[in-house]
Amino acid sequence: MEGNIQLPPLGQSELTLLWAVLASAFVALGYGWYLVRKVLKEDPGTPQMQQVARAIEEGAMAYLGRQVRTMIWFVIVITIGLFFMYRSETQGMPGQENVPLGVAVAFLMGVMASYGAGYVGMWLAVKANVRAANAALKGFKQALELAFRAGTVSGMFTVGFGLLGAILIFMIFRENAMKILVGFGFGGSLAALFMRVGGGIFTKAADVGADLVGKVEQNIPEDDPRNAAVIADNVGDNVGDCAGMAADMFESYEVTLVAAIILAAACLHNPGFNAIYGAAASAFALKLILYPLLIRALGVFSSIIGTWAVRAKDKELADPMRPISIGYWTASIVSVIGFWIVNHFYLIDPNTGAPDYRFFWATTMGIVLAVVTLWLTNHFTHPNLRPTTETAVAARTGPATLILAGMAEGLESTVWAALAIGLTIISSLIIFPDNVALAAYGIALTGLGLLTTTGFILAMDTYGPITDNAHGIFEMSGITEAHEASRNLAWMDAIGNTTKALTKGLAIATAVIAAISLFSSFIDATHLTEGIQVNLPHVFVGLLIGGAVPFLFSSFAIKAVGRAAFQVVEEVRRQFREHPGIMTGQEKPEYGTCVSIVTAAAQKELLGPGILAIATPVLVGFGLGPGALGGYLAGAILTGQLLAGYMCNTGATWDNAKKKIEDGFLGGKGTDAHKAGVIGDTVGDPYKDTAGPAFNPLIKVMNLVGLLIAPFVIHINMHELSVSRVVIVLLCIVALAIGISFSKRGSLAEGMDRDTRQAAK
Amino acid sequence: MEGNIQLPPLGQSELTLLWAVLASAFVALGYGWYLVRKVLKEDPGTPQMQQVARAIEEGAMAYLGRQVRTMIWFVIVITIGLFFMYRSETQGMPGQENVPLGVAVAFLMGVMASYGAGYVGMWLAVKANVRAANAALKGFKQALELAFRAGTVSGMFTVGFGLLGAILIFMIFRENAMKILVGFGFGGSLAALFMRVGGGIFTKAADVGADLVGKVEQNIPEDDPRNAAVIADNVGDNVGDCAGMAADMFESYEVTLVAAIILAAACLHNPGFNAIYGAAASAFALKLILYPLLIRALGVFSSIIGTWAVRAKDKELADPMRPISIGYWTASIVSVIGFWIVNHFYLIDPNTGAPDYRFFWATTMGIVLAVVTLWLTNHFTHPNLRPTTETAVAARTGPATLILAGMAEGLESTVWAALAIGLTIISSLIIFPDNVALAAYGIALTGLGLLTTTGFILAMDTYGPITDNAHGIFEMSGITEAHEASRNLAWMDAIGNTTKALTKGLAIATAVIAAISLFSSFIDATHLTEGIQVNLPHVFVGLLIGGAVPFLFSSFAIKAVGRAAFQVVEEVRRQFREHPGIMTGQEKPEYGTCVSIVTAAAQKELLGPGILAIATPVLVGFGLGPGALGGYLAGAILTGQLLAGYMCNTGATWDNAKKKIEDGFLGGKGTDAHKAGVIGDTVGDPYKDTAGPAFNPLIKVMNLVGLLIAPFVIHINMHELSVSRVVIVLLCIVALAIGISFSKRGSLAEGMDRDTRQAAK
Repeated sequence: MEGNIQLPPLGQSELTLLWAVLASAFVALGYGWYLVRKVLKEDPGTPQMQQVARAIEEGAMAYLGRQVRTMIWFVIVITIGLFFMYRSETQGMPGQENVPLGVAVAFLMGVMASYGAGYVGMWLAVKANVRAANAALKGFKQALELAFRAGTVSGMFTVGFGLLGAILIFMIFRENAMKILVGFGFGGSLAALFMRVGGGIFTKAADVGADLVGKVEQNIPEDDPRNAAVIADNVGDNVGDCAGMAADMFESYEVTLVAAIILAAACLHNPGFNAIYGAAASAFALKLILYPLLIRALGVFSSIIGTWAVRAKDKELADPMRPISIGYWTASIVSVIGFWIVNHFYLIDPNTGAPDYRFFWATTMGIVLAVVTLWLTNHFTHPNLRPTTETAVAARTGPATLILAGMAEGLESTVWAALAIGLTIISSLIIFPDNVALAAYGIALTGLGLLTTTGFILAMDTYGPITDNAHGIFEMSGITEAHEASRNLAWMDAIGNTTKALTKGLAIATAVIAAISLFSSFIDATHLTEGIQVNLPHVFVGLLIGGAVPFLFSSFAIKAVGRAAFQVVEEVRRQFREHPGIMTGQEKPEYGTCVSIVTAAAQKELLGPGILAIATPVLVGFGLGPGALGGYLAGAILTGQLLAGYMCNTGATWDNAKKKIEDGFLGGKGTDAHKAGVIGDTVGDPYKDTAGPAFNPLIKVMNLVGLLIAPFVIHINMHELSVSRVVIVLLCIVALAIGISFSKRGSLAEGMDRDTRQAAK
Repeated sequence: MEGNIQLPPLGQSELTLLWAVLASAFVALGYGWYLVRKVLKEDPGTPQMQQVARAIEEGAMAYLGRQVRTMIWFVIVITIGLFFMYRSETQGMPGQENVPLGVAVAFLMGVMASYGAGYVGMWLAVKANVRAANAALKGFKQALELAFRAGTVSGMFTVGFGLLGAILIFMIFRENAMKILVGFGFGGSLAALFMRVGGGIFTKAADVGADLVGKVEQNIPEDDPRNAAVIADNVGDNVGDCAGMAADMFESYEVTLVAAIILAAACLHNPGFNAIYGAAASAFALKLILYPLLIRALGVFSSIIGTWAVRAKDKELADPMRPISIGYWTASIVSVIGFWIVNHFYLIDPNTGAPDYRFFWATTMGIVLAVVTLWLTNHFTHPNLRPTTETAVAARTGPATLILAGMAEGLESTVWAALAIGLTIISSLIIFPDNVALAAYGIALTGLGLLTTTGFILAMDTYGPITDNAHGIFEMSGITEAHEASRNLAWMDAIGNTTKALTKGLAIATAVIAAISLFSSFIDATHLTEGIQVNLPHVFVGLLIGGAVPFLFSSFAIKAVGRAAFQVVEEVRRQFREHPGIMTGQEKPEYGTCVSIVTAAAQKELLGPGILAIATPVLVGFGLGPGALGGYLAGAILTGQLLAGYMCNTGATWDNAKKKIEDGFLGGKGTDAHKAGVIGDTVGDPYKDTAGPAFNPLIKVMNLVGLLIAPFVIHINMHELSVSRVVIVLLCIVALAIGISFSKRGSLAEGMDRDTRQAAK
């Protein structure tokens, strides 16, 4: 098939390198397993603690079980679709016989690996939470290190699965690896989208529902065991922030790797590249293809070293962010040194015989972008810095001004984040001024560099829900004498919010970089030599539709949380009404029903966003042709990135403004200012934990769908109608109509009315 | 100069047509003047009413005076800049000697015409408000018709100025008219941006400030004369909704006309077009150039007929929306019939000798888009329809859920609006499948058709603030016996909110259509034969920056309202504190100080957004070259359009949800649900009246700046640095740094702290 990027055959030295990378994947998995055993050996605490923890564990595992049953139908349909699509495409092409089955299997593997990364991370998190709560009784150091170690497991398995999958595909499929890798990435992204959206809806529906009845109606504190939704809320932290984030990071880790490999392979076909390197071009391109794998292998070790460096000084309470920052800087510096070493010994310019350090600089720019992104997120969301302080101050004139102030900060924050990404891309153009293929590869290397420390980043993220849960378990198990331990956990929990926000910022940055890299592959695949010209009206319409999709997506997500939260409210109210003993503490609420309600609701709500992500690019591609599809992808990346930054940061600013007030600012808890803060925080819940973080997998799923259908939309012209085209377009419209009407149905108002009717009976 | 579109010489029959168009411009102005005299003859009411009205009038006029003094510096700098820019460009070109001065003068004329349209509309509105209040004592019919007639004046002057300016430029500059028209459009857009942003900040700062002290702190009703900010609030309705909107519509009216004329002229240079029409190509293109002017002339008459059709049945109270809808449909149907007649007799295909009705269809699509846009806006914001009802219902669980529900509806609404625009563009591609130049012209005709009824639309819009003011004057002048009249005015006022929202929806739709049309001119001007390829990294960076600008812009606008509102709060508090007699009604507050405070604040706050709109496209153009500039424009249009729809509709939904609750839903005023509604409405204030409507002129200003600098950025290459380029880039960065730091300075928090310090003294 024309334009099909094939790899040159691998020599012995390349195979040796691949075996080394494979070994490092096993190092990651082995180290992860070692930590699992270490964490499990810790004391799981008092029977009461264990009882609470068991309820959380059961709920979380039940959720993931249900998740599989929802995804499975999508996955089966797409697997079959991919197989037949690729069979028709590769029909009669020598050497490509294994591609259709390969893509289908790789897609399945991608789904399983992404799901698996989430599963393992959460599996340990729900065992570590109670152990961290118990460790807090012994001291700050023990609790922090245990929580962080458990978080590291999630990081190690994610990295291990990601590297293992990629390397196996490489070693098995050799010259056909490119297409198979796209299938693997697509599987990972799709699973991540489901885990992210489902988890996001679960966690916020439980949180908002619990707060609305608990804090607002009944005036009982957070994590009060009398609230039937309190276990669901704790389960939510795990399914959203552990499982959802791990799947998300797995996906980013994988897609940035795939993009870099594809663009390195694209150099092979670039006349300019061949002119520069002459006879050595093919061999040098092969080196560029393997370089991303080496960087990923390096990342395993820098992440491990970074996590080692996270050590609390002693038993006394100290700022938990300090050791984590030290760990992150360690991992980053080790990575940069590693880049230099790999570049120095491996990427020798065949023309001069000297190392070509441009690749080192491009990869390092990724680390720089990560640091800048973390700095920006921290600036806009840290409780003690100007933006959050101003948002908190605005609480004096009520919730409206607080909300507006936070919004203004969030709107600004996303601009700087976008600008940082823009400057990084420009830097790659400056590093590689003379060849477009190398410049595109350079951008992909930036994305690769950005996620070098994935193992560490994920450890930092998973630490959040573990401490959050630990704190909750502590409160619920009724240990009151241990005031010091509770304070330690509260502080660790607060820092967990910051680390979660930081990770979200990084995740969305990768979406843009990876998407731009995938663009170049898209152009290759569609032979759009004229490029994606947004000045052409139909391309602009594609841009307009693509840009609109993230808006619709967030509308769906917000409504879904509202609907599901309302079901929780109804259930908790019912329990309070039917069992008055709950309020007095004589009866135990049924935690399980709330968990089942949110589990079912979150899964149902996946339908609309899922169809939206898959059907709209297909519709635009087959309806308006490849140029419009390109415009669509560009539009989706643009607004997806901007909305993601806006929603995540605004939500975090509101959350921390509330926390700042709770810490005593403007009078502390119970004041009008605090009420305003709680309102702002509730508005921010679906912003920062449902819609905001879901844009990253959304953008990538849409890009990968675009890349997968690219060979089929190449010849589509706006003005020619074929039967198959009409059928596909109509199918997409029907699917979208179902998805949209589903996401608009059974609204909040209806739920409310139902409740009123029930109450009236 | 290469690529410079010149018109063929005008013959006698063309000149006759131009005179006819000129005559219709005078018809519009004459009819406007006739209505002015009619309105002024009406009884201005009791001395008390007149006293209140005079205060509003003085404040409004003082604001517009100050507005000139702010704009003047921007205008002078740009006029001089344009003159020298074009002098260097046209140096030594025969026949272009009058271009530099022409562009500069046309720019000035555009500023003055846009300002003038706003001035006249507001000048009569502040005289009509008190007369409408008085007419309400006589009956519903009198009040409605007077308010609508006064609104029509604004429409007629806007249309008259717009047509007059364009036709004069045409008749004077003949073959050089294209460039001069762009200058005229730029002047109009820039003035509109200032009037829109300044007016938007003024109106919402006064409104929010008045509400925060009045409703929230002192618990006195809206429009209570004891509130020192109440006159400023009423002035705000005029400067925002009358002057701001008239300038905005003038700008849209003009830019859609300019775009259609430019694209008709571009057909002259299109090989496909010349192949189709052979020897008759030039003559037919000239017809296409004049067709937009004829359509505009036709619009004068259809708008006049439409406004005639607005008649209330009798003195009794009836739905005020009914006569307005009848009038709108009348104007639309008359327009469509007119399009057909003009097309039938004027646009005869030179090849077949039969009328070519495709132009009729393209223009009619504009009317269809207008109807769809109005329907969508109405659906998402009408108090009795599902979206607003659901938003209101969500008030049961507090302000947070109400805000989220409204947001979800607003996010969805903008998606359908964007889709409607997309389908309109596609329809033009289907109508003109065989020639790109004609397809582009068809899209421009859609924009032209959309605004055919500008005269009517503006009448409908200006009616809003007039009735709003009339209601306010009524309340303040202490006439309590006339309960019936007050109810009439309240209902008319509520419908005024709907008509304002509808106009905003239309205005933003024009921005996208006009901007796409300007794109084609941009490609011509930059000779970017490779188009704007977003797949190229530097173009994508342009897209990213362009998409980010509307986010920063709205952040600035929201902060500006917060800062200015806080100054109002301080002043009203001061007056209550220093003059305790105000609260008891023994003393009159000083209304003037609040008006001056908001006037000064609104003007100061223009700096940041103004610099942002002008400097960023210049920075991207000179920094990254013409392709990136194109990407920048595309990104700005995309997110600007989506955010505009989102913010305008969300704000209107919240506003009407509050109104629905005030009308008795969920218990009516004083309930917790009502409090939640008020919070949502306050959050929505800067959304729907400051940031939201300002995106339309913002997008067009940036596009026109892009078009104006296009000839100078043609040869810029990312990797080559020249001194002038570096200087321009640095100047832009300095300007932006000043603008951004200015818009971030003296924050809400600082204002608050100052207040606390003062209070502590």
